Amino acid sequence: MTINSLTKNTKHLLHALYQSGVRHFVVSPGSRTTPVALLLAEYARQNKNIKLYIDVDERSAGFFALGIAKKLLEPVALLGTSGTAITEYTSAVAEAHISHIPLIVLSTDRPVELQDNGAPQTIPQHQIFGALTKKFVVFTLQDEQPDVTSYIDFMTQKLVHEIVMSPRGPLQINLPLRKPLMPQLNEPTAIIVPLLKFDAIDDSMSPMKLSESRVVIIAGPNEGADYQSELLNFSKKYHVPIIADVLSRTRQKTTIYGIDALIKANILTSAYQPDLVIRFGATPVSARILEWLKSENIPVWFVGENTLADHSRHVSRVLQLTPTSFLSQISVDNNAEFYQRWQDLNQKKRYITGEASIANVLDRVLPDQTAVFVANSMAIRDMDDVFTGQTTQNIYANRGANGIDGIISTALGMSSTSQKRSVLLTGDLTLFHDMNGLMMARQYYLPIDIIVINNNGGAIFSFLPQATAEPYFDMLFGTPLNLNVSKIADLYELAYVKIKTADELERVIKIPVTGTRLIEFESNRSNNVKAHQQLMGGVQHE
Amino acid sequence: MTINSLTKNTKHLLHALYQSGVRHFVVSPGSRTTPVALLLAEYARQNKNIKLYIDVDERSAGFFALGIAKKLLEPVALLGTSGTAITEYTSAVAEAHISHIPLIVLSTDRPVELQDNGAPQTIPQHQIFGALTKKFVVFTLQDEQPDVTSYIDFMTQKLVHEIVMSPRGPLQINLPLRKPLMPQLNEPTAIIVPLLKFDAIDDSMSPMKLSESRVVIIAGPNEGADYQSELLNFSKKYHVPIIADVLSRTRQKTTIYGIDALIKANILTSAYQPDLVIRFGATPVSARILEWLKSENIPVWFVGENTLADHSRHVSRVLQLTPTSFLSQISVDNNAEFYQRWQDLNQKKRYITGEASIANVLDRVLPDQTAVFVANSMAIRDMDDVFTGQTTQNIYANRGANGIDGIISTALGMSSTSQKRSVLLTGDLTLFHDMNGLMMARQYYLPIDIIVINNNGGAIFSFLPQATAEPYFDMLFGTPLNLNVSKIADLYELAYVKIKTADELERVIKIPVTGTRLIEFESNRSNNVKAHQQLMGGVQHE
Repeated sequence: MTINSLTKNTKHLLHALYQSGVRHFVVSPGSRTTPVALLLAEYARQNKNIKLYIDVDERSAGFFALGIAKKLLEPVALLGTSGTAITEYTSAVAEAHISHIPLIVLSTDRPVELQDNGAPQTIPQHQIFGALTKKFVVFTLQDEQPDVTSYIDFMTQKLVHEIVMSPRGPLQINLPLRKPLMPQLNEPTAIIVPLLKFDAIDDSMSPMKLSESRVVIIAGPNEGADYQSELLNFSKKYHVPIIADVLSRTRQKTTIYGIDALIKANILTSAYQPDLVIRFGATPVSARILEWLKSENIPVWFVGENTLADHSRHVSRVLQLTPTSFLSQISVDNNAEFYQRWQDLNQKKRYITGEASIANVLDRVLPDQTAVFVANSMAIRDMDDVFTGQTTQNIYANRGANGIDGIISTALGMSSTSQKRSVLLTGDLTLFHDMNGLMMARQYYLPIDIIVINNNGGAIFSFLPQATAEPYFDMLFGTPLNLNVSKIADLYELAYVKIKTADELERVIKIPVTGTRLIEFESNRSNNVKAHQQLMGGVQHE
Repeated sequence: MTINSLTKNTKHLLHALYQSGVRHFVVSPGSRTTPVALLLAEYARQNKNIKLYIDVDERSAGFFALGIAKKLLEPVALLGTSGTAITEYTSAVAEAHISHIPLIVLSTDRPVELQDNGAPQTIPQHQIFGALTKKFVVFTLQDEQPDVTSYIDFMTQKLVHEIVMSPRGPLQINLPLRKPLMPQLNEPTAIIVPLLKFDAIDDSMSPMKLSESRVVIIAGPNEGADYQSELLNFSKKYHVPIIADVLSRTRQKTTIYGIDALIKANILTSAYQPDLVIRFGATPVSARILEWLKSENIPVWFVGENTLADHSRHVSRVLQLTPTSFLSQISVDNNAEFYQRWQDLNQKKRYITGEASIANVLDRVLPDQTAVFVANSMAIRDMDDVFTGQTTQNIYANRGANGIDGIISTALGMSSTSQKRSVLLTGDLTLFHDMNGLMMARQYYLPIDIIVINNNGGAIFSFLPQATAEPYFDMLFGTPLNLNVSKIADLYELAYVKIKTADELERVIKIPVTGTRLIEFESNRSNNVKAHQQLMGGVQHE
C-alpha cells in the first residue's frame, strides 16, 4: 500500500510537532478531525513520550491545555473540529496571549470549496483569533505536491520555535480537509522530518571550531549592520571564501561577486562545492545560489538575530546572534587551495555589454561611498552581476516586497538625508510607476542622478517563459509606453542628459551639477537578453 | 489663553515622538490633518532638529519617508488625512514590514460619530494595515481627561521603542478628530513629557552602583523564571526589602507579603517611602501598590526581557534583561534601619478570619512544593494577603486576562502533569462557570483537591461601589446560584467533603486520598467584607 498524501502529510505534521518539543495533545473529537485524531492516536501508541487527552468540551480543552503548558512551560497542542468548536478556544487563547504561553491550536476546517456557501459547520477560520495568536499558518494536508510536505516540516519547526521564544504566544495551524477523511492506519512508510535546529544564544556564544574544511559564507542583503571588516579579517585568517550580495555592504576585491552569472554559466563545478555554507542577512538577490545549495544538498546554517527567512526551506541550523558575535567566536581550518579556487572566480573574464555596462561604469567612476539606490527587476540583477563594490558599499534597494512602485520616492527620501550627490539606477517602467514622486525632487532640489535605462517596457519578462507567447507578449508583458524622458524632465524642471553609450556616463557623472538630473540611456529589450546570455562568454540559456 | 485639549494633546504627541528619536516628518496635508500639521509646522520652526517635508501625493510620501528611514535607520513619521489617502501608504508599509523599517503612520481620522454612516472620506482606519504594522494605537487628541495626555506621553515612547527594537516594523497611530480642527498657535504653555528611558542590554550589563539608599524591589507575578535564591542573597547583602507577590515564586520569610492590606490599613507611612523602586515581573495582584507608587511619585524602574506592561504609566526606566543578569551586576548601599523597618512589617499581627483563613491554613499545612492553582477574584486576593510561601512557591493563576471561565480546566491541566496531589482554591461562581471541566477529573482520575469557598455568588462585588445599589445588587452582582456542591461531586463521581471551619481543612488535607476531591467551605458574603476590613486590626474602608 502506497502512502497517500493525507496520511503522509498528517504524519509529517505530527512528527514535526514532536520534533519541536510538543509532547501533550488535547483532542476534542469531531468528524473533521478524523485523519489527524486517528494518526495521532496511532502515533501516541508507538511513542510513549506522547501524552494524549480527550476532552469533549473545547472550552475546557483549551484551558486544560493551558494548564499543562503553564506548568511545564512547553508548547501544548489542541486539536478541534470545524465551526464553533474552534471559537470555544478563544478565551484560553486570550489568556495565553497575555500571559505568554505557547498554546498551539490545530483547527481542522472545511475545504475551500465549502467556504461562505451555506455549508454546515463552516465559519471563516483563517486567523480567527486575530491579534491573539502570535503566528498563523495553513497546511493543506491532502495536497500531493511534494513541496507541501517539506513546507509542513520546515514551517512547523520554525513556527513552534518562534512561539517558544520570548515573548511567547499562541499559534494557530488551520487545516482545511475534504472528504474522504479516513487516513491509512498501520501504514509502514518511515517518516523522516529533516531537523531544523535552533541555537538561541542569549548572552555571548562560546568559542566553536568547525570541523568542515570547505566552509563558504554567503553575505546576503544587510541594511544597517556593519561587519565588513570583521568578515574580511575572518575570511583571510581562516581561508573562508565570501560570496557577497550587492546589498551585503561587504563587497570588496577579496569577496566573490556575480554568483548568479557564475552558476548560470555552469562554472561552479564540484571542485567548488562547499561542505558547509553559512548564510548572513536576507534573501540574496541571486535566486540561483539558493537553488544550487538545495539541489546539491549542501548543508546551510543561518546566522542572524531576526526571524529566519528561507523560502528554499533548506537551512538546517539557525544561530540567533549577530554576525559580528558569531565571527568573533568561530574558527575554521579551511583548505587553502579551495579558498584560492574561489578567489580566482573574480578573475574570470566578463563580457559586459548593453544595460549591464551602466552598472559597470558606476563601479569604476562613482565618488567614494556614494549612496546608490537600485530599482528592482533588471537593475538590481545587473548590479549583482557586475558591480564589484570597489568604490561604495552604500547600496540601497526595496528588497522586502520587491515592488516597482515607489522606487523614485524611496531614492529621493534616501538622497534627502545628505548633501552629497546620490544615484538611482532604474528602468523606464519603474520610473513611470512613481513619476509623481519627482515632484519632491523639484520642490526640495534634491542632489541625485536618476539613471534611466529606457528599454521601452518590462525587460525582465523577455527572460521568462512568457516571452515565447508572441501574439500577446508585448501587449501584456513588454508594455511599451514610449515614455519621453526629456519631457518628464521638462515637466518637473529637472536637468536632463541623454547618453548613447555607457562610456558617456563617466563623462556626465564628472560634470559638476546641483539638484536632480535625469540621465537617459536607451536600450533594446532583445539585445539585452543576448548581452546577458553572453556575460560569462559563450551562450547560456535561462 | 488657557491651552485647550486638542492643542495640548497634539503637542504632547509631537514632543513624545521627538523624545523617542523621531526627527523627520513627511506630511501630506488635508483638512483632517489641520491641528497636527499646523502644530508640527510651529514645532519645526522652534526646533531646528526637526525636518519637515510636504509631499502632496501620499503614495510618494510613504516611500519618501521609507527612503529616509532606510538610510538613517531611524523612525520616520508620516502624517496623512482621512480616507483613501491613508490606504495610499499601504505599499510602503508592506515594504517596511518585510524589510524591518520603523515607519510611523499618523493617520488622522473622522470621529466615532461619523463612522459607517455615509460621511465623506470615512473608511474604517483602525488597524487598516492589518498584520503589516507591528503595533497600533488610537489617541483621542480632543479628550479632556488628563489621563489621556499621560497615555499619549507613555504609549508613544513605549511603542516607538518597540518598533525600533528587533525585529523592527511599522506603527500606525490613528487619530480620530472632530471639528473644530483649528489648534491654538503661539500658545505659550510649556510641554513636559516625562521621559521613559529604555536600556536595551544586548549582551551582558556592566556593573552599576545605585546612589539611592532606600531602594525597594517589587517581585511581581512570574511564571517560570527562577531567581529566588539570587534575589534573597541580593536582599540580604545590600539590605534591600523585597515586596513579593504571591505569584512571584520568591515569597519566603524574609520577603514582605500582603502589601495590599498594609497599604489599605495606612501602615505605609513616609518612614517606609523608598527613593527608588525596581519592579520585576508582571502586574502585581495588589492594585494598591501601583497606585501608591504613583500617588507618592516614587521613581520606578522595570527590569525584564519582555515588553513593558505598566498600566499605571509610572515606570520611568526600563532595563531589558533578565532579573538574574540585573541582580548580578547591581550594588546598593541601602540604609540598614530602613531595611529593618520593612522586615518588621511581616511581624504585624493579622486577624485572619472567614474566607482568608483557608489560605492561611494552606500556608501552614501544605506538603512541600505542592502545586496550587488560585482562582481570580477573591481567592487570589486572599492568597496575596495572607499566604506567606513557607511551604510552596509553586503557585499558578490565570493572571493574563484574569477570567473566571476555564479555571477548573486550567487547574486540572496543571495537576495532570504530576503524580503529586495539587490544590485548587476557588469560589462557587468560578466553579460553576467551568463545571463541565470536571469531566476531565473523572475521566483521568486527576490527583487534586478543589477547595470551593461557597459564598453563594460573586463575593468580590460586595467590596465595590455597586454594593450600595441594594434593590438590584443581588440580582445583577451577587447572583446567588444556590449551587449544591455535593450533587456536583456526585454527578462527576468525585470525592466530597464539607468543612465548617478552616481548621478542619488541616485534618482533611492530611487524609490519604487518590483522585479528585471537592472540599466545600461555606461562607457568607457580608461577613466576608467585615473579615477583610479587620485583617490588620481596626476597621478600614475600601
